[in-house]
Amino acid sequence: MEFASSEVLGFTAGIVTTLSLLPQALKIMTTRRTRDISLLWAISMNIGILLWLFYGIAKNDMPMITANSISFALLFLILIFKLRFR
Amino acid sequence: MEFASSEVLGFTAGIVTTLSLLPQALKIMTTRRTRDISLLWAISMNIGILLWLFYGIAKNDMPMITANSISFALLFLILIFKLRFR
Repeated sequence: MEFASSEVLGFTAGIVTTLSLLPQALKIMTTRRTRDISLLWAISMNIGILLWLFYGIAKNDMPMITANSISFALLFLILIFKLRFR
Repeated sequence: MEFASSEVLGFTAGIVTTLSLLPQALKIMTTRRTRDISLLWAISMNIGILLWLFYGIAKNDMPMITANSISFALLFLILIFKLRFR
């Protein structure tokens, strides 16, 4: 299995942006506070990342499909937290 | 100037995720509070979106180039806020 160098770049980008959501989710789980996080950000990021996922599927772009699937799961969790913890 | 339907999807995704950062930035500007926002999220999102931008350039993907350029500017602003307002 070989990857073009652009694929490596895409997967690296995907790993970084996806992993970036982990400390945010963990911070909320620890503090149970979401006051400074915008609800509109959480809602629109969920919708937007889902659209990027569909775009990745349309373009058959593996880095985008992988990263946006996992990011969506984490963003959905953050949105649930935002709705639950004020 | 014509766009494939996948391009329209990509631009829509880009508009939504980019605009999602605006209410977050505005919220911080209004409240001057960033306590519930993860610093690690802010740092890694800046790095990650920059990598997505490079990936978009490598793939010559206009939706990715446009969205990630503007997103990076907004995320950089949010990072500055995060470092300034605790």
